[in-house]
Amino acid sequence: MDSAAETAGGYQPWSEVTPDAARRLLIAAVEAFAERGYHATTTRDIAGRAGMSPAALYIHYKTKEELLHRISRIGHDKALEILTTAADAPGGAAERLDAAVRSFVRWHAAHHTTARVVQYELDALAPEHRSEIVALRRQSDAAVRRILADGVEAGEFDVPDVPGTTLAVLSLCIDVARWFSVSGPRTPDEVGALYADLVLRMVGARPHEVQPGT
Amino acid sequence: MDSAAETAGGYQPWSEVTPDAARRLLIAAVEAFAERGYHATTTRDIAGRAGMSPAALYIHYKTKEELLHRISRIGHDKALEILTTAADAPGGAAERLDAAVRSFVRWHAAHHTTARVVQYELDALAPEHRSEIVALRRQSDAAVRRILADGVEAGEFDVPDVPGTTLAVLSLCIDVARWFSVSGPRTPDEVGALYADLVLRMVGARPHEVQPGT
Repeated sequence: MDSAAETAGGYQPWSEVTPDAARRLLIAAVEAFAERGYHATTTRDIAGRAGMSPAALYIHYKTKEELLHRISRIGHDKALEILTTAADAPGGAAERLDAAVRSFVRWHAAHHTTARVVQYELDALAPEHRSEIVALRRQSDAAVRRILADGVEAGEFDVPDVPGTTLAVLSLCIDVARWFSVSGPRTPDEVGALYADLVLRMVGARPHEVQPGT
Repeated sequence: MDSAAETAGGYQPWSEVTPDAARRLLIAAVEAFAERGYHATTTRDIAGRAGMSPAALYIHYKTKEELLHRISRIGHDKALEILTTAADAPGGAAERLDAAVRSFVRWHAAHHTTARVVQYELDALAPEHRSEIVALRRQSDAAVRRILADGVEAGEFDVPDVPGTTLAVLSLCIDVARWFSVSGPRTPDEVGALYADLVLRMVGARPHEVQPGT
Protein backbone atom coordinates (compact mmCIF):
# COMPACT_ATOMS: atom_id res chain seq x y z
CA MET A 1 0.00 0.00 0.00
CA ASP A 2 2.79 2.42 0.88
CA SER A 3 4.41 2.40 -2.53
CA ALA A 4 1.08 2.89 -4.36
CA ALA A 5 0.15 5.70 -2.00
CA GLU A 6 3.53 7.35 -2.48
CA THR A 7 3.35 7.13 -6.25
CA ALA A 8 -0.09 8.71 -6.16
CA GLY A 9 1.20 11.23 -3.63
CA GLY A 10 4.03 12.30 -5.90
CA TYR A 11 1.54 12.75 -8.73
CA GLN A 12 -1.12 14.54 -6.72
CA PRO A 13 -1.18 17.82 -4.83
CA TRP A 14 -1.46 16.40 -1.35
CA SER A 15 1.94 17.43 0.02
CA GLU A 16 0.24 19.96 2.33
CA VAL A 17 -1.74 17.20 4.04
CA THR A 18 -0.04 16.00 7.22
CA PRO A 19 0.60 13.70 8.98
CA ASP A 20 1.40 10.95 6.48
CA ALA A 21 -1.57 8.79 7.61
CA ALA A 22 -4.01 11.63 6.89
CA ARG A 23 -2.49 12.06 3.43
CA ARG A 24 -2.68 8.33 2.67
CA LEU A 25 -6.36 8.31 3.68
CA LEU A 26 -7.11 11.29 1.43
CA ILE A 27 -5.43 9.63 -1.55
CA ALA A 28 -7.35 6.40 -0.83
CA ALA A 29 -10.61 8.40 -0.66
CA VAL A 30 -9.93 10.05 -4.03
CA GLU A 31 -9.35 6.66 -5.64
CA ALA A 32 -12.43 5.08 -4.07
CA PHE A 33 -14.75 8.02 -4.88
CA ALA A 34 -13.47 8.13 -8.48
CA GLU A 35 -13.96 4.39 -8.95
CA ARG A 36 -17.33 3.76 -7.31
CA GLY A 37 -18.74 7.23 -6.54
CA TYR A 38 -19.05 8.97 -3.17
CA HIS A 39 -22.33 7.35 -2.13
CA ALA A 40 -21.15 3.79 -2.86
CA THR A 41 -17.95 4.25 -0.82
CA THR A 42 -17.77 3.56 2.92
CA THR A 43 -15.18 4.83 5.39
CA ARG A 44 -14.30 1.14 5.86
CA ASP A 45 -13.44 0.91 2.10
CA ILE A 46 -11.22 3.98 2.40
CA ALA A 47 -9.41 2.75 5.51
CA GLY A 48 -8.87 -0.65 3.84
CA ARG A 49 -7.37 0.95 0.72
CA ALA A 50 -4.97 2.94 2.91
CA GLY A 51 -4.01 -0.24 4.81
CA MET A 52 -5.52 1.14 8.02
CA SER A 53 -8.34 0.25 10.41
CA PRO A 54 -11.64 2.19 10.48
CA ALA A 55 -10.67 3.31 14.00
CA ALA A 56 -7.42 4.78 12.67
CA LEU A 57 -9.41 6.68 10.02
CA TYR A 58 -11.61 8.31 12.66
CA ILE A 59 -8.54 9.82 14.35
CA HIS A 60 -8.09 11.98 11.24
CA TYR A 61 -11.58 12.35 9.73
CA LYS A 62 -14.86 12.21 11.65
CA THR A 63 -17.03 11.55 8.58
CA LYS A 64 -16.80 10.54 4.92
CA GLU A 65 -18.08 14.01 4.06
CA GLU A 66 -15.10 15.55 5.88
CA LEU A 67 -12.80 13.64 3.51
CA LEU A 68 -14.76 14.84 0.45
CA HIS A 69 -14.73 18.41 1.74
CA ARG A 70 -10.98 18.30 2.29
CA ILE A 71 -10.41 16.94 -1.25
CA SER A 72 -12.79 19.48 -2.77
CA ARG A 73 -11.24 22.37 -0.83
CA ILE A 74 -7.67 21.48 -1.84
CA GLY A 75 -8.71 21.03 -5.49
CA HIS A 76 -10.64 24.30 -5.62
CA ASP A 77 -7.87 26.23 -3.84
CA LYS A 78 -5.43 24.94 -6.47
CA ALA A 79 -7.75 25.88 -9.36
CA LEU A 80 -8.20 29.38 -7.96
CA GLU A 81 -4.44 29.77 -7.42
CA ILE A 82 -3.75 28.74 -11.04
CA LEU A 83 -6.30 31.16 -12.47
CA THR A 84 -5.51 34.17 -10.26
CA THR A 85 -1.76 33.73 -10.86
CA ALA A 86 -2.45 33.96 -14.60
CA ALA A 87 -4.93 36.83 -14.23
CA ASP A 88 -2.54 38.86 -12.03
CA ALA A 89 0.53 38.29 -14.22
CA PRO A 90 2.06 41.17 -16.18
CA GLY A 91 1.61 41.15 -19.94
CA GLY A 92 -1.26 41.50 -22.39
CA ALA A 93 -4.63 39.80 -22.04
CA ALA A 94 -3.82 37.23 -24.76
CA GLU A 95 -0.63 36.19 -22.96
CA ARG A 96 -2.46 35.92 -19.60
CA LEU A 97 -5.35 33.95 -21.13
CA ASP A 98 -2.89 31.61 -22.84
CA ALA A 99 -1.15 30.98 -19.50
CA ALA A 100 -4.45 30.49 -17.64
CA VAL A 101 -5.75 27.91 -20.12
CA ARG A 102 -2.45 26.04 -20.40
CA SER A 103 -1.97 25.63 -16.67
CA PHE A 104 -5.64 24.95 -15.90
CA VAL A 105 -5.76 22.25 -18.61
CA ARG A 106 -2.47 20.73 -17.50
CA TRP A 107 -3.80 20.42 -13.96
CA HIS A 108 -7.06 18.76 -15.10
CA ALA A 109 -5.16 16.34 -17.33
CA ALA A 110 -2.38 15.43 -14.88
CA HIS A 111 -4.75 15.15 -11.90
CA HIS A 112 -7.81 13.87 -13.76
CA THR A 113 -8.83 11.38 -11.06
CA THR A 114 -8.84 14.05 -8.36
CA ALA A 115 -10.46 16.56 -10.70
CA ARG A 116 -13.35 14.20 -11.47
CA VAL A 117 -14.11 13.82 -7.76
CA VAL A 118 -13.78 17.59 -7.24
CA GLN A 119 -16.10 18.36 -10.19
CA TYR A 120 -18.70 15.60 -9.99
CA GLU A 121 -19.37 15.21 -6.27
CA LEU A 122 -20.32 18.80 -5.38
CA ASP A 123 -23.89 17.74 -4.59
CA ALA A 124 -22.63 15.36 -1.89
CA LEU A 125 -21.08 18.18 0.18
CA ALA A 126 -22.86 19.37 3.31
CA PRO A 127 -24.71 22.68 2.71
CA GLU A 128 -22.14 24.87 4.55
CA HIS A 129 -19.24 23.23 2.70
CA ARG A 130 -21.05 23.52 -0.59
CA SER A 131 -21.50 27.30 -0.05
CA GLU A 132 -17.80 27.66 0.73
CA ILE A 133 -16.84 25.78 -2.47
CA VAL A 134 -19.35 27.69 -4.61
CA ALA A 135 -17.72 30.93 -3.37
CA LEU A 136 -14.29 29.65 -4.51
CA ARG A 137 -15.75 28.69 -7.91
CA ARG A 138 -17.16 32.23 -8.28
CA GLN A 139 -13.69 33.65 -7.61
CA SER A 140 -12.17 31.33 -10.27
CA ASP A 141 -14.84 32.45 -12.69
CA ALA A 142 -14.13 36.11 -11.87
CA ALA A 143 -10.38 35.66 -12.57
CA VAL A 144 -11.07 34.44 -16.12
CA ARG A 145 -13.80 37.03 -16.67
CA ARG A 146 -11.32 39.74 -15.68
CA ILE A 147 -8.79 38.61 -18.32
CA LEU A 148 -11.52 38.61 -21.01
CA ALA A 149 -12.82 42.04 -19.95
CA ASP A 150 -9.25 43.44 -19.98
CA GLY A 151 -8.72 42.05 -23.48
CA VAL A 152 -11.95 43.59 -24.76
CA GLU A 153 -11.09 46.95 -23.18
CA ALA A 154 -7.58 46.89 -24.68
CA GLY A 155 -8.97 46.01 -28.14
CA GLU A 156 -7.10 42.69 -28.08
CA PHE A 157 -10.26 40.53 -27.94
CA ASP A 158 -13.62 40.51 -29.69
CA VAL A 159 -16.03 38.90 -27.17
CA PRO A 160 -19.73 39.76 -27.54
CA ASP A 161 -20.73 37.74 -24.43
CA VAL A 162 -18.05 37.89 -21.71
CA PRO A 163 -19.89 35.88 -18.99
CA GLY A 164 -20.96 33.20 -21.50
CA THR A 165 -17.49 32.94 -23.02
CA THR A 166 -15.93 32.74 -19.53
CA LEU A 167 -18.26 29.83 -18.73
CA ALA A 168 -17.36 28.08 -22.01
CA VAL A 169 -13.59 28.51 -21.48
CA LEU A 170 -13.73 27.07 -17.95
CA SER A 171 -16.06 24.26 -19.07
CA LEU A 172 -13.75 23.28 -21.94
CA CYS A 173 -10.78 23.06 -19.55
CA ILE A 174 -12.67 21.23 -16.77
CA ASP A 175 -14.00 18.56 -19.14
CA VAL A 176 -10.42 17.49 -19.88
CA ALA A 177 -10.67 15.59 -16.57
CA ARG A 178 -13.50 13.46 -18.02
CA TRP A 179 -11.82 12.32 -21.25
CA PHE A 180 -8.09 12.55 -20.53
CA SER A 181 -6.26 9.24 -20.38
CA VAL A 182 -2.58 8.67 -19.69
CA SER A 183 -2.67 6.02 -22.44
CA GLY A 184 -4.09 8.54 -24.96
CA PRO A 185 -2.06 10.15 -27.75
CA ARG A 186 -1.54 13.57 -26.09
CA THR A 187 0.42 14.69 -23.03
CA PRO A 188 -1.05 17.24 -20.59
CA ASP A 189 1.31 19.86 -22.10
CA GLU A 190 0.13 19.11 -25.63
CA VAL A 191 -3.54 19.38 -24.66
CA GLY A 192 -2.70 22.66 -22.87
CA ALA A 193 -1.07 24.09 -26.01
CA LEU A 194 -3.94 22.98 -28.29
CA TYR A 195 -6.57 24.40 -25.94
CA ALA A 196 -4.74 27.73 -25.45
CA ASP A 197 -4.78 28.18 -29.24
CA LEU A 198 -8.49 27.25 -29.49
CA VAL A 199 -9.44 29.63 -26.68
CA LEU A 200 -7.48 32.51 -28.21
CA ARG A 201 -9.47 31.89 -31.40
CA MET A 202 -12.73 31.91 -29.39
CA VAL A 203 -11.95 35.42 -28.12
CA GLY A 204 -10.88 36.67 -31.54
CA ALA A 205 -7.22 37.08 -30.56
CA ARG A 206 -5.83 34.98 -33.42
CA PRO A 207 -5.40 36.47 -36.90
CA HIS A 208 -8.07 35.10 -39.22
CA GLU A 209 -6.17 33.25 -41.91
CA VAL A 210 -8.94 32.21 -44.26
CA GLN A 211 -10.07 34.94 -46.62
CA PRO A 212 -13.85 35.19 -47.13
CA GLY A 213 -14.85 33.89 -50.54
CA THR A 214 -11.77 31.72 -51.08
CA MET B 1 -45.18 8.48 -8.97
CA ASP B 2 -47.11 8.38 -12.23
CA SER B 3 -47.30 12.12 -12.72
CA ALA B 4 -43.59 12.68 -11.95
CA ALA B 5 -42.64 9.85 -14.30
CA GLU B 6 -44.86 11.29 -17.01
CA THR B 7 -43.38 14.77 -16.65
CA ALA B 8 -39.89 13.31 -16.90
CA GLY B 9 -41.07 11.12 -19.81
CA GLY B 10 -42.28 14.15 -21.75
CA TYR B 11 -38.93 15.82 -21.18
CA GLN B 12 -36.75 12.83 -22.00
CA PRO B 13 -36.30 10.72 -25.11
CA TRP B 14 -37.88 7.55 -23.83
CA SER B 15 -40.93 7.38 -26.07
CA GLU B 16 -39.41 4.38 -27.91
CA VAL B 17 -39.34 2.35 -24.68
CA THR B 18 -42.41 0.15 -24.31
CA PRO B 19 -44.40 -1.04 -22.45
CA ASP B 20 -45.15 1.85 -20.11
CA ALA B 21 -43.78 -0.05 -17.06
CA ALA B 22 -40.40 -0.54 -18.77
CA ARG B 23 -40.29 3.18 -19.60
CA ARG B 24 -41.16 4.19 -16.02
CA LEU B 25 -38.38 1.96 -14.70
CA LEU B 26 -35.86 3.47 -17.11
CA ILE B 27 -36.78 7.00 -16.08
CA ALA B 28 -36.55 5.98 -12.39
CA ALA B 29 -33.10 4.46 -13.06
CA VAL B 30 -31.86 7.66 -14.73
CA GLU B 31 -32.97 9.71 -11.74
CA ALA B 32 -31.45 7.31 -9.19
CA PHE B 33 -28.12 6.96 -11.05
CA ALA B 34 -27.86 10.74 -11.48
CA GLU B 35 -28.60 11.38 -7.80
CA ARG B 36 -26.51 8.72 -6.05
CA GLY B 37 -24.36 7.14 -8.77
CA TYR B 38 -24.72 3.73 -10.42
CA HIS B 39 -22.87 1.75 -7.74
CA ALA B 40 -24.87 3.21 -4.84
CA THR B 41 -28.22 2.43 -6.52
CA THR B 42 -29.99 -0.93 -6.10
CA THR B 43 -32.67 -2.42 -8.33
CA ARG B 44 -34.90 -2.18 -5.23
CA ASP B 45 -34.34 1.63 -5.18
CA ILE B 46 -35.27 1.84 -8.86
CA ALA B 47 -38.40 -0.29 -8.49
CA GLY B 48 -39.44 1.80 -5.46
CA ARG B 49 -39.05 5.08 -7.37
CA ALA B 50 -41.19 3.70 -10.18
CA GLY B 51 -43.85 2.59 -7.66
CA MET B 52 -43.25 -1.06 -8.52
CA SER B 53 -42.03 -4.20 -6.76
CA PRO B 54 -38.52 -5.64 -7.36
CA ALA B 55 -40.25 -8.69 -8.89
CA ALA B 56 -42.03 -6.43 -11.40
CA LEU B 57 -38.69 -4.86 -12.33
CA TYR B 58 -37.19 -8.27 -13.14
CA ILE B 59 -39.92 -8.90 -15.73
CA HIS B 60 -38.40 -6.06 -17.77
CA TYR B 61 -34.71 -5.96 -16.79
CA LYS B 62 -32.64 -8.88 -15.53
CA THR B 63 -29.89 -6.72 -13.99
CA LYS B 64 -29.08 -3.16 -13.00
CA GLU B 65 -26.44 -3.17 -15.73
CA GLU B 66 -29.13 -3.95 -18.33
CA LEU B 67 -30.90 -0.74 -17.30
CA LEU B 68 -27.67 1.28 -17.58
CA HIS B 69 -26.91 -0.27 -20.95
CA ARG B 70 -30.38 0.56 -22.26
CA ILE B 71 -30.04 4.20 -21.06
CA SER B 72 -26.53 4.50 -22.50
CA ARG B 73 -27.55 2.96 -25.83
CA ILE B 74 -30.57 5.26 -26.27
CA GLY B 75 -28.48 8.32 -25.33
CA HIS B 76 -25.63 7.42 -27.66
CA ASP B 77 -27.98 6.56 -30.53
CA LYS B 78 -29.57 9.99 -30.14
CA ALA B 79 -26.17 11.74 -30.05
CA LEU B 80 -25.06 9.93 -33.19
CA GLU B 81 -28.35 10.72 -34.96
CA ILE B 82 -27.99 14.44 -34.13
CA LEU B 83 -24.40 14.60 -35.38
CA THR B 84 -24.82 12.53 -38.56
CA THR B 85 -27.98 14.46 -39.49
CA ALA B 86 -25.93 17.68 -39.32
CA ALA B 87 -22.91 16.15 -41.08
CA ASP B 88 -25.06 14.75 -43.93
CA ALA B 89 -27.11 17.93 -44.46
CA PRO B 90 -26.66 19.99 -47.62
CA GLY B 91 -24.88 23.35 -47.29
CA GLY B 92 -21.40 24.56 -46.46
CA ALA B 93 -19.24 23.21 -43.65
CA ALA B 94 -19.85 26.29 -41.47
CA GLU B 95 -23.60 25.85 -41.74
CA ARG B 96 -23.38 22.13 -40.93
CA LEU B 97 -21.04 22.72 -38.00
CA ASP B 98 -23.35 25.43 -36.67
CA ALA B 99 -26.30 23.00 -36.85
CA ALA B 100 -24.32 20.14 -35.24
CA VAL B 101 -23.21 22.26 -32.27
CA ARG B 102 -26.62 23.88 -31.74
CA SER B 103 -28.53 20.62 -31.68
CA PHE B 104 -25.90 18.66 -29.72
CA VAL B 105 -25.75 21.42 -27.06
CA ARG B 106 -29.55 21.73 -26.91
CA TRP B 107 -29.80 17.99 -26.27
CA HIS B 108 -27.18 18.05 -23.49
CA ALA B 109 -28.85 21.06 -21.84
CA ALA B 110 -32.45 19.85 -22.12
CA HIS B 111 -31.60 16.28 -21.10
CA HIS B 112 -28.76 17.06 -18.71
CA THR B 113 -29.76 14.45 -16.12
CA THR B 114 -29.79 11.66 -18.70
CA ALA B 115 -26.64 13.00 -20.35
CA ARG B 116 -24.73 12.93 -17.06
CA VAL B 117 -25.56 9.25 -16.57
CA VAL B 118 -24.71 8.50 -20.21
CA GLN B 119 -21.35 10.33 -19.97
CA TYR B 120 -20.17 9.51 -16.44
CA GLU B 121 -21.11 5.85 -15.99
CA LEU B 122 -19.34 4.32 -19.00
CA ASP B 123 -16.94 2.42 -16.74
CA ALA B 124 -19.87 0.61 -15.09
CA LEU B 125 -20.95 -1.04 -18.35
CA ALA B 126 -20.16 -4.71 -18.94
CA PRO B 127 -17.17 -5.15 -21.31
CA GLU B 128 -19.28 -6.18 -24.36
CA HIS B 129 -21.67 -3.26 -23.82
CA ARG B 130 -18.81 -0.87 -23.31
CA SER B 131 -17.28 -1.93 -26.66
CA GLU B 132 -20.62 -1.36 -28.40
CA ILE B 133 -20.93 2.14 -26.88
CA VAL B 134 -17.30 3.04 -27.66
CA ALA B 135 -18.02 2.14 -31.31
CA LEU B 136 -20.99 4.55 -31.33
CA ARG B 137 -18.83 7.27 -29.79
CA ARG B 138 -16.23 6.75 -32.53
CA GLN B 139 -18.95 7.22 -35.15
CA SER B 140 -20.09 10.46 -33.47
CA ASP B 141 -16.52 11.65 -33.43
CA ALA B 142 -16.15 10.76 -37.12
CA ALA B 143 -19.26 12.79 -38.06
CA VAL B 144 -17.79 15.97 -36.53
CA ARG B 145 -14.33 15.25 -37.92
CA ARG B 146 -15.86 14.92 -41.40
CA ILE B 147 -17.45 18.40 -41.15
CA LEU B 148 -14.11 19.92 -40.06
CA ALA B 149 -12.17 18.12 -42.81
CA ASP B 150 -14.73 19.28 -45.43
CA GLY B 151 -14.39 22.86 -44.17
CA VAL B 152 -10.60 22.74 -44.37
CA GLU B 153 -10.73 21.23 -47.87
CA ALA B 154 -13.20 23.89 -49.06
CA GLY B 155 -11.04 26.68 -47.59
CA GLU B 156 -13.85 27.63 -45.21
CA PHE B 157 -11.97 26.62 -42.04
CA ASP B 158 -8.44 27.05 -40.72
CA VAL B 159 -7.87 24.02 -38.45
CA PRO B 160 -4.25 22.94 -37.86
CA ASP B 161 -5.25 19.91 -35.73
CA VAL B 162 -8.51 18.32 -36.96
CA PRO B 163 -8.64 15.35 -34.50
CA GLY B 164 -7.75 17.58 -31.53
CA THR B 165 -10.27 20.25 -32.50
CA THR B 166 -12.97 17.58 -33.02
CA LEU B 167 -12.30 16.32 -29.50
CA ALA B 168 -12.49 19.86 -28.09
CA VAL B 169 -15.76 20.66 -29.89
CA LEU B 170 -17.44 17.48 -28.63
CA SER B 171 -16.04 17.99 -25.13
CA LEU B 172 -17.31 21.57 -24.95
CA CYS B 173 -20.82 20.45 -25.94
CA ILE B 174 -20.87 17.38 -23.64
CA ASP B 175 -19.80 19.37 -20.58
CA VAL B 176 -22.99 21.44 -20.89
CA ALA B 177 -24.66 18.47 -19.14
CA ARG B 178 -22.45 19.04 -16.07
CA TRP B 179 -23.13 22.74 -15.50
CA PHE B 180 -26.51 23.38 -17.13
CA SER B 181 -29.31 24.24 -14.72
CA VAL B 182 -32.93 24.96 -15.57
CA SER B 183 -32.77 27.74 -12.97
CA GLY B 184 -29.74 29.32 -14.68
CA PRO B 185 -29.87 32.47 -16.84
CA ARG B 186 -29.72 30.75 -20.26
CA THR B 187 -32.13 28.50 -22.14
CA PRO B 188 -30.86 25.44 -24.07
CA ASP B 189 -31.41 27.42 -27.32
CA GLU B 190 -29.35 30.36 -26.05
CA VAL B 191 -26.46 28.13 -24.99
CA GLY B 192 -26.66 26.43 -28.41
CA ALA B 193 -26.42 29.78 -30.23
CA LEU B 194 -23.51 30.99 -28.05
CA TYR B 195 -21.60 27.74 -28.50
CA ALA B 196 -22.18 27.59 -32.27
CA ASP B 197 -20.59 31.04 -32.53
CA LEU B 198 -17.64 30.06 -30.30
CA VAL B 199 -17.00 26.85 -32.26
CA LEU B 200 -17.10 28.67 -35.61
CA ARG B 201 -14.45 30.99 -34.18
CA MET B 202 -12.38 27.97 -33.06
CA VAL B 203 -12.27 26.70 -36.66
CA GLY B 204 -11.48 30.13 -38.09
CA ALA B 205 -14.84 30.47 -39.86
CA ARG B 206 -15.71 33.83 -38.32
CA PRO B 207 -14.26 37.05 -39.72
CA HIS B 208 -11.62 38.41 -37.35
CA GLU B 209 -12.94 41.79 -36.24
CA VAL B 210 -10.04 43.10 -34.16
CA GLN B 211 -7.24 44.66 -36.19
CA PRO B 212 -3.70 43.80 -35.02
CA GLY B 213 -2.10 46.74 -33.27
CA THR B 214 -5.33 48.53 -32.37
